Amino acid sequence: MPNHVELLCIGNELLIGKTLNTNAWWLAKRITALGLEVKRITVVGDNIEEIVKALKEALRRKPKILITTGGLGPTFDDKTLEGIARALNQKLEINQDAYKMIEEKYRSYVRDGKIDKFELTPYRIKMAKLPEKGEPLPNPIGTAPGILLKHGNTYIVALPGVPPEMEAIFNESVAPLVREKAKGVTFYEMSIHVNGIVESEIAPLIDKAMHDNPYVYIKSHPKSAEKKLHIEIHFSTTAKDANIAKKRISRTLIQISELIQAKGGKVKVPKKAI
Amino acid sequence: MPNHVELLCIGNELLIGKTLNTNAWWLAKRITALGLEVKRITVVGDNIEEIVKALKEALRRKPKILITTGGLGPTFDDKTLEGIARALNQKLEINQDAYKMIEEKYRSYVRDGKIDKFELTPYRIKMAKLPEKGEPLPNPIGTAPGILLKHGNTYIVALPGVPPEMEAIFNESVAPLVREKAKGVTFYEMSIHVNGIVESEIAPLIDKAMHDNPYVYIKSHPKSAEKKLHIEIHFSTTAKDANIAKKRISRTLIQISELIQAKGGKVKVPKKAI
Repeated sequence: MPNHVELLCIGNELLIGKTLNTNAWWLAKRITALGLEVKRITVVGDNIEEIVKALKEALRRKPKILITTGGLGPTFDDKTLEGIARALNQKLEINQDAYKMIEEKYRSYVRDGKIDKFELTPYRIKMAKLPEKGEPLPNPIGTAPGILLKHGNTYIVALPGVPPEMEAIFNESVAPLVREKAKGVTFYEMSIHVNGIVESEIAPLIDKAMHDNPYVYIKSHPKSAEKKLHIEIHFSTTAKDANIAKKRISRTLIQISELIQAKGGKVKVPKKAI
Repeated sequence: MPNHVELLCIGNELLIGKTLNTNAWWLAKRITALGLEVKRITVVGDNIEEIVKALKEALRRKPKILITTGGLGPTFDDKTLEGIARALNQKLEINQDAYKMIEEKYRSYVRDGKIDKFELTPYRIKMAKLPEKGEPLPNPIGTAPGILLKHGNTYIVALPGVPPEMEAIFNESVAPLVREKAKGVTFYEMSIHVNGIVESEIAPLIDKAMHDNPYVYIKSHPKSAEKKLHIEIHFSTTAKDANIAKKRISRTLIQISELIQAKGGKVKVPKKAI
């Protein structure tokens, strides 16, 4: 049974390099920490055909959870909900719960003096038009609600693109779902920093340590060009028990540190590893 | 004839949220400025099946250029070249030019005292094993060369994941190819900043301005939650002539600024727009 997550980030601003995709980074970090594996991230523009194609492709890979970001707002190029409806062959219709959420937001904006008069224009009602089987997820700090729906064995979650809104909805409504699907498995990681040795000399040492410690994944990250000789070595594992995870990583980390020192490299080990 | 670019970023660090994908951002910005359209960005892990699948899918969409980042180094999880070879049904074999580049790098590391003795270990030779039709692109600041090969009408470019190396190879060997394929078309953009009006009030104004200015794309970016009322409005167009592009954007920008002011919004226009 696949148990992975996919992210689909929607927005021209990501494809023209106007906006750095911090949403994908934030979500990947949070989801990994909560115990599920993010297997693929896709970015497409505000183009309905591209969105539908990317959604259908992702669904064929049967992720446990498929999270989209962006495209939920009131403008013409907010097309995510239409894309989900088309990809799933569902109608797009006004959802009463979403309608009430949006109505209440605009009433509060009148009270706060942000807008002059209360009015639900077609642009505002658009945000309440969900794929028929979708349910809205409250947006604690913005207007457009998130959306949750289940299709086959996949949960589809649509989050807004504005980072604080995306994070707030994730924390409130999506994190519990991710934690539940992770079934108690958690991700653990640690790094050491190495100087005075090139990556190609470390490569066989990683092979040896990974052979001896099959549950630990080790990856070297040269922090600049190889000749600068500063390399981070990152250790990660997933486990249900924090002590087991910590022991696995510590053992591997000590082994590789000794191997590197024997080759003349200098190693900086974090205090928590010892 | 499709004339778009796709990016495929390879690395577990991107999927666990350890590393922010600044490579995709930098490449998207550069390629857009050089006149081509980036249509999709995909991120997969250091997993040979995932890499091969993502490459084949991207090639079926027939981009003019497909750029990969990451996975060119000496360690076991640097799998991009094997992935390209498998996706294209090509053999992976030592390329004499790449071999010479790598040999010269390690000789220079000996001269600089970075390594003790010159030796081409299997881990170092790995970086010279290219898909049989590939040619190496010199890496001015690191060890692993980039790779260029043509498959059908698609140029496949493999760049390293270390940002300064990726950027250096792109600037030296890939930017001229992108510029040539863009055929003189260039991308122009400008933004105004708006306060005191919510996004749903701006939405119909954008519709009107885009209807009147069909060559200009307009996108609103709320800088925080909608109720905070600070919105960037971004205008972009592509054209062969800078004056035409500038006039198009200025006209649209002035029209929408007047519409927003009529609705009680405050507009900050950059000096260069007037």
